[in-house]
Amino acid sequence: MRIIKSSQRLQRIVRQLRKKNKTIGFVPTMGALHEGHLSLIRKAKKENDICLLSIFVNPLQFGPREDFHHYPRPVRSDNLLAKKEKVDIIFHPSGKSMYPSGFLTTVEVAQLSDALCGRSRPGHFRGVTTVVAKLLNIVGPNIMYLGQKDAQQAIILKRMVADLNFPTTIKICPTVREKGGLALSSRNKYLTARHRQQAAILYRSLKEAKGKIKSGERRATAIIRHIRSRIEKMSAGRIDYVACVDARTLVPLQTIRGHVMLALAVKFGEARLIDNIIFKVS
Amino acid sequence: MRIIKSSQRLQRIVRQLRKKNKTIGFVPTMGALHEGHLSLIRKAKKENDICLLSIFVNPLQFGPREDFHHYPRPVRSDNLLAKKEKVDIIFHPSGKSMYPSGFLTTVEVAQLSDALCGRSRPGHFRGVTTVVAKLLNIVGPNIMYLGQKDAQQAIILKRMVADLNFPTTIKICPTVREKGGLALSSRNKYLTARHRQQAAILYRSLKEAKGKIKSGERRATAIIRHIRSRIEKMSAGRIDYVACVDARTLVPLQTIRGHVMLALAVKFGEARLIDNIIFKVS
Repeated sequence: MRIIKSSQRLQRIVRQLRKKNKTIGFVPTMGALHEGHLSLIRKAKKENDICLLSIFVNPLQFGPREDFHHYPRPVRSDNLLAKKEKVDIIFHPSGKSMYPSGFLTTVEVAQLSDALCGRSRPGHFRGVTTVVAKLLNIVGPNIMYLGQKDAQQAIILKRMVADLNFPTTIKICPTVREKGGLALSSRNKYLTARHRQQAAILYRSLKEAKGKIKSGERRATAIIRHIRSRIEKMSAGRIDYVACVDARTLVPLQTIRGHVMLALAVKFGEARLIDNIIFKVS
Repeated sequence: MRIIKSSQRLQRIVRQLRKKNKTIGFVPTMGALHEGHLSLIRKAKKENDICLLSIFVNPLQFGPREDFHHYPRPVRSDNLLAKKEKVDIIFHPSGKSMYPSGFLTTVEVAQLSDALCGRSRPGHFRGVTTVVAKLLNIVGPNIMYLGQKDAQQAIILKRMVADLNFPTTIKICPTVREKGGLALSSRNKYLTARHRQQAAILYRSLKEAKGKIKSGERRATAIIRHIRSRIEKMSAGRIDYVACVDARTLVPLQTIRGHVMLALAVKFGEARLIDNIIFKVS
């Protein structure tokens, strides 16, 4: 396993791999790897000649009052986990090399970036699209693997890749969960034991809502009300949003039909947790 | 010479060329080819295995009151000229294929895009950077060739390519001029014979100003005043701007030194002409 810090060096390595007709599967992360990341790595490993993992806590996607400085950076254990999964290359750039002085360029996906998490985290998705545009140009992957847990991010990056003609396919892989249902996230480390237990209600309430829709409920307001009241009743979480939207446009639904996404963000102490569930309603 | 309209098809062709280790020199244009474009094509042809020319009148870089609909599109003569220069591939996409419905992504270079032409053409450079990001991903060139005439565009695109890590080198080639000094431009077609004659003062005034600086003048205001008064005296042109800026940051200079750019935009009837001159002052 090679650990590369310089983007120029990685670009040279990738050029050589391309000449040998090697395919590259790419998993972009901010490190603090958990089973969710590992599931992406395993898929990338299986479907490509080379599995390339990036670890970069991207300052551009954090707001001024967010957890950039506290975000976990367990470099050694990340490297060990990656090695165990037989990752071929880790790209681990410094903030300075990614954003040298004089950096002025941004990539932005309108509309989709303003919905849901974009509302409470202004500029967040612009930070994501900008860094991923850079990473795609550095890594030149055949396939990029993203987790369904960050559904809005995945939808926005799919749009960016299509709009800007990046020669990369995006594959979105299922959310990995704890036994109780809580979606794995590097930010779960911020949870107290009590909050962690309570947070299981997030996914449970989404599943219940899906059940109600499958049984015939079509009013988005009723569904949202149900999810909110379950979270409020069963936990100390502060709801940021609960939404019922079209899963492709992120536009709020009134009558539930088509590709539906139920999504939520809830804060427990310092931790802002997100989750979602996507399904078709005919 | 192959003429390709589909970006997917071109990406397949480029992938094959890459596998054969062919280098690609790329000249992005809006067509209406003149000797300025041909000089870029010749250089691309000479320095690469494959010379790829794009012809696309990019709606995104025209303001609502600008000349998008009138912009010349002499498709047949462009193709003939390209063929004569032994261009290998012309990429000639439709507006709809470049910007299908649902298109939402923009690439923007801050600061540099707001100076000079950006002031009178809000959104113009965002249109340029967005389309060139797309073209770079479609064409995947080793080298992209740009003309010095559009100096601000070249500076912005260099910044974008560096910031977003595109694996492409940019080469900027000298402005090609008529005998009288007028910079070649597709928009010169809009000029009356009389205006065309008068417009020679643009370059002449820039050269005079450079002479004054070389003789010791260091006050930007005096230099700008000289250029303005010469244009006003010798032509019916309406000055949009005359500027003396740092050639890398586009920040206006007070005392002239370092990498200097004198730049101007002047309207003659419908035609908005630009020109510039760049030199070092110690």
